[in-house]
Amino acid sequence: MPASSSHDTIRAVAFVDGALRLLDQRRLPAEETYLLCTDADSVAAAIRDLVVRGAPAIGIAAAWGVVLEARRLAAQGSSLTLDALEPAMQRLNASRPTAVNLAWALQRMRRAGAQVPRSPGMDESGSRAGAQVPRSPALDGSASGEVERRNALVQALTSEAQRIQDDDLAANRHMGELGAALIAPGSGVLTHCNTGSLATAGFGTALGVIRAGYSGGRIAQVYAGETRPWQQGARLTMWELTRDAIPAKLIADSAAAHLMKSGAVQWVVVGADRIAANGDTANKIGTYQLAISARHHGVKFMVVAPASTVDMQTADGSHIEIELRDPTELFGIGGARNVIAGADAWNPVFDVTPSELIDALVTERGVIERPDADKMRALFGAGR
Amino acid sequence: MPASSSHDTIRAVAFVDGALRLLDQRRLPAEETYLLCTDADSVAAAIRDLVVRGAPAIGIAAAWGVVLEARRLAAQGSSLTLDALEPAMQRLNASRPTAVNLAWALQRMRRAGAQVPRSPGMDESGSRAGAQVPRSPALDGSASGEVERRNALVQALTSEAQRIQDDDLAANRHMGELGAALIAPGSGVLTHCNTGSLATAGFGTALGVIRAGYSGGRIAQVYAGETRPWQQGARLTMWELTRDAIPAKLIADSAAAHLMKSGAVQWVVVGADRIAANGDTANKIGTYQLAISARHHGVKFMVVAPASTVDMQTADGSHIEIELRDPTELFGIGGARNVIAGADAWNPVFDVTPSELIDALVTERGVIERPDADKMRALFGAGR
Repeated sequence: MPASSSHDTIRAVAFVDGALRLLDQRRLPAEETYLLCTDADSVAAAIRDLVVRGAPAIGIAAAWGVVLEARRLAAQGSSLTLDALEPAMQRLNASRPTAVNLAWALQRMRRAGAQVPRSPGMDESGSRAGAQVPRSPALDGSASGEVERRNALVQALTSEAQRIQDDDLAANRHMGELGAALIAPGSGVLTHCNTGSLATAGFGTALGVIRAGYSGGRIAQVYAGETRPWQQGARLTMWELTRDAIPAKLIADSAAAHLMKSGAVQWVVVGADRIAANGDTANKIGTYQLAISARHHGVKFMVVAPASTVDMQTADGSHIEIELRDPTELFGIGGARNVIAGADAWNPVFDVTPSELIDALVTERGVIERPDADKMRALFGAGR
Repeated sequence: MPASSSHDTIRAVAFVDGALRLLDQRRLPAEETYLLCTDADSVAAAIRDLVVRGAPAIGIAAAWGVVLEARRLAAQGSSLTLDALEPAMQRLNASRPTAVNLAWALQRMRRAGAQVPRSPGMDESGSRAGAQVPRSPALDGSASGEVERRNALVQALTSEAQRIQDDDLAANRHMGELGAALIAPGSGVLTHCNTGSLATAGFGTALGVIRAGYSGGRIAQVYAGETRPWQQGARLTMWELTRDAIPAKLIADSAAAHLMKSGAVQWVVVGADRIAANGDTANKIGTYQLAISARHHGVKFMVVAPASTVDMQTADGSHIEIELRDPTELFGIGGARNVIAGADAWNPVFDVTPSELIDALVTERGVIERPDADKMRALFGAGR
């Protein structure tokens, strides 16, 4: 799906001419280079090596990795079945074991593949006798039937990968409109980390609201926090916004409260890594601090994330485990160490913003203002 | 004055064997090297080039620069007068034009020099006829009188420079005791920027409270914010605390609220660049955000600064101009740029913490809890 406007030109993941083209995010912003993956293992390596990052983008890349493996086996003339794809899917799944979207996307691919009738010898489900999926006459045990079956499976997997990608983009566009509608014309907004085209199929979640809001005149100026220690705001969000001609200024993370006091921003707009059943939201470290400062200044606070981020099995934020990472991540940027040898550090990657500090939670299913357990249940079900 | 304990070993500015020895802060933490200045111009260069930083430390270095110029002129056998020192004092003053302590220290040196009787030919104030300062018989126009006068001036300037340095250290030690007394035994504290031995004659202001508090068992664990974009916390405070065996952990500036929520800190302890007549305090960017988060979590907030930081001519924080610095300071660390070309940034260096968010203001004149205009006037006078 092509980008729709001059403020939405970036696609980090694209399947083009039988290969997966990935924008190499490790080299941003210094270089804009693309990596072409022509088999599943090179996709797995790209995920592992952070060429592609952001949970939705990782899931989409993995889905295309399955397609590449299916095409490879088909081109070899091997007997192509879902089982034959499983080893590659396992390798893709292991490339970033903690990314929920990765496992979810692979599961969608398995289900899509399972809808295609198997070759007679492989069929253990009785679908030959009582098939629910209508079959063409050619899908029998003949050689031409085998080729057609193979092509049908490749086609089904290709369609599903494209659907995963298109669904993500459509959800982001929808969330963008929903979120932007909450913002008064001419507003300033502050965002954190990177939640944009680079992390998704395109458009972004919180950055999608910002793209829609800027295009519609509701947002006049964007501020982006650096997001120490990984600098996703400085490296990636500033790259996206500058490339897409959306007026943006970088700030030190600790300048946010001073910015709010100046009256320059009316909304903080951020993404989410996990949303509990009462609306408590885990997101990149620093989000909680922004929410506290926003409430102190009467600045509104918006969380934008797909419904797949909502975890109704987790009652509240106190049950969300916060990953602590290697202290050395705080000891420099770009390899130049600037902290004394022997120093210690405390390096939590995420924090939890309680739902009381959230003014609006935007998903593709709709907006919840001032989320709580009742409103969450009404939109997302009981979670059982 | 030697350091008094194993938790107070660092002296960045010392006059030793007729030369000023400066710890080269540009090279910390990678290298601990010292620069020896033997004349006033090398001191001015060291201030300009950030070998020495921190308002009190700069003032002390400049005072020693005046002593070095006096010794140089005396060694040449020139006629040594206060006027002869003035060109060097001007060059020292111009080395960091915005540093208030620099002008203040030079003014103290001028006054100390003015107490020494001038040579007869230079005397335009009538002090020869009606001297208020008693003279020794030798202080006449003779050659031996000239030498003695010269030596008296060098001695007076040396004593004053030492006094400026000793006063600063004594004030820091006193503030350290006053501030530490407010902290319950076994507490955790969070600090920001560098307010330690590196920025002062020794011991430090906020870090002085931390040194005294740790030595006295009141502080068990220190957390230091990185202090983007200059990383004074990462580079300098972590160096000081690690060197002086005070348990310290570095955190990203944006991890402070999450830290407070965890219950690990009971106090935030920071310095000040300027304190208005109502107690509003300007300090390094990020201080205000810490104060908001501290109040949100019931964590106490302490400002520690010498009385010379109090500006009773400024009614409140709204009259304090906040310096905006070059956006490029946010575009990397250690020379490695990591923001897209053409990007913009907003880079305020300081912010203002309103007195309502300050639980204790500690100066060498005493402690003000919950400062306001009345309490400030009672301790610091009307400021006219």
